[in-house]
Amino acid sequence: MNILWVLAHPDSRSLTAALHREGIAELTAAGHHVEVSDLYAMKWNPVVDAGDYGSGRDERLLVGPASRQALEDGTLSPDIRAEQDKLDRADLVVLQFPLWWFGMPAILKGWVDRVFIKGYAYSLPDPERPGRSLRYGTGGLAGKRALAVVTVGGAPEGYEPRGIDGALEHLLFPLLHGTFFYTGMAPLPPVAIYNANHMSDQDYKAAAAELRARLRDADKAEPIPYRTQNGGDYDNRMILRPDVATDRTGLDAHVQVRSPVG
Amino acid sequence: MNILWVLAHPDSRSLTAALHREGIAELTAAGHHVEVSDLYAMKWNPVVDAGDYGSGRDERLLVGPASRQALEDGTLSPDIRAEQDKLDRADLVVLQFPLWWFGMPAILKGWVDRVFIKGYAYSLPDPERPGRSLRYGTGGLAGKRALAVVTVGGAPEGYEPRGIDGALEHLLFPLLHGTFFYTGMAPLPPVAIYNANHMSDQDYKAAAAELRARLRDADKAEPIPYRTQNGGDYDNRMILRPDVATDRTGLDAHVQVRSPVG
Repeated sequence: MNILWVLAHPDSRSLTAALHREGIAELTAAGHHVEVSDLYAMKWNPVVDAGDYGSGRDERLLVGPASRQALEDGTLSPDIRAEQDKLDRADLVVLQFPLWWFGMPAILKGWVDRVFIKGYAYSLPDPERPGRSLRYGTGGLAGKRALAVVTVGGAPEGYEPRGIDGALEHLLFPLLHGTFFYTGMAPLPPVAIYNANHMSDQDYKAAAAELRARLRDADKAEPIPYRTQNGGDYDNRMILRPDVATDRTGLDAHVQVRSPVG
Repeated sequence: MNILWVLAHPDSRSLTAALHREGIAELTAAGHHVEVSDLYAMKWNPVVDAGDYGSGRDERLLVGPASRQALEDGTLSPDIRAEQDKLDRADLVVLQFPLWWFGMPAILKGWVDRVFIKGYAYSLPDPERPGRSLRYGTGGLAGKRALAVVTVGGAPEGYEPRGIDGALEHLLFPLLHGTFFYTGMAPLPPVAIYNANHMSDQDYKAAAAELRARLRDADKAEPIPYRTQNGGDYDNRMILRPDVATDRTGLDAHVQVRSPVG
């Protein structure tokens, strides 16, 4: 497998960075090829602006159309193109980050904002459905798997289905469903390391072992079975049909229920 | 009222910026005092790093402790202090942004990441509960109201309770519950303007009127009634007690059900 590992932590002495090195060692030993985008080390610019697209200052910036035009014209900023080239080569995309305010650090959010542009990651016309775009299960990044690896300061109880912080898969829904799945990638269940500010050596060993095991399994693990846009579960207005997910509410309604095994 | 309005759009000719001017006009005419943080115009730096805290390069960066220490020592970066001063003066905080990848643009996420630091916005000791911090309903920003004003490219159906994109209040849960409510602010239901890329003049007038009406009402509107940490709904592990929200699952379980009026 080719892997793109995107890392977002300001300190190479952090828990996040230590786990990153464990992950690279595991994947490399298994014969995979890994490219790394260490966003802090790269001094990645996370801020979308007209300069990304070579757009003139006298025309109003419509981010979607301007980015698509720049992609077609070859005027996209070279730092964005370089990340798209890495994505193009990847079978698995890993985003690793500390959970800040229940989401990605700004430097990583801005990697998504700037790299996943219209006409590249999304808004590709569906040849079978005129007027529709490929998304939610298919799109510009179809065929790739995606894994979020998250360190969390809080205790795991807070992130249980009835924990005060909200279930992690709900908090990360904008990333797992709205970004990975939206662009056609297959989102794996995230790897979460809790109590990240209070780890003993033993805790660290357990976290590293869990991460390594999840990476060993990443090419065959079952993705989160979100419902696809064109699978028949949504009506023409893109609302779940009344006979679908009758026993589920909220964000969980967008996950297919798997039949019990055996 | 004193209002801090934080704006995150790269173009002053955008729909977002036009609605921003409508909002300022409405609030000013009503006699309120408004301060604006126009993040793009300010060239706001959204990236947390050791330089924020005046920390030495030879010590490992632990973001929480380092930021709290810098706050105590007065070595916090002046741009962060300036935003905290604006927050301190505000009765209402408005965050206005286009929804990018179902969340805030990086420049705004990094405003939260850098400004809402430990010891200022959160992790203040609870005098009544030794070993506990003030959060979820109380905290460093208690007494303020908070309003998200969001422009959304997609159609509103996608954001209905069973729409394919997920309900907007679920997608924004990390901001409304995990940031506003976590730090003690009272989160108002967000103002959402859909189909933002395809607006007629009439659509624009309707959107501006809705925003103005919501702002007129902002000092007395009912906040989203999230359950407070110390209100008795959560057990010691911070999990909802079994007899609470028995009829609700997912993120909605953290919202109190209001009794019918009359």
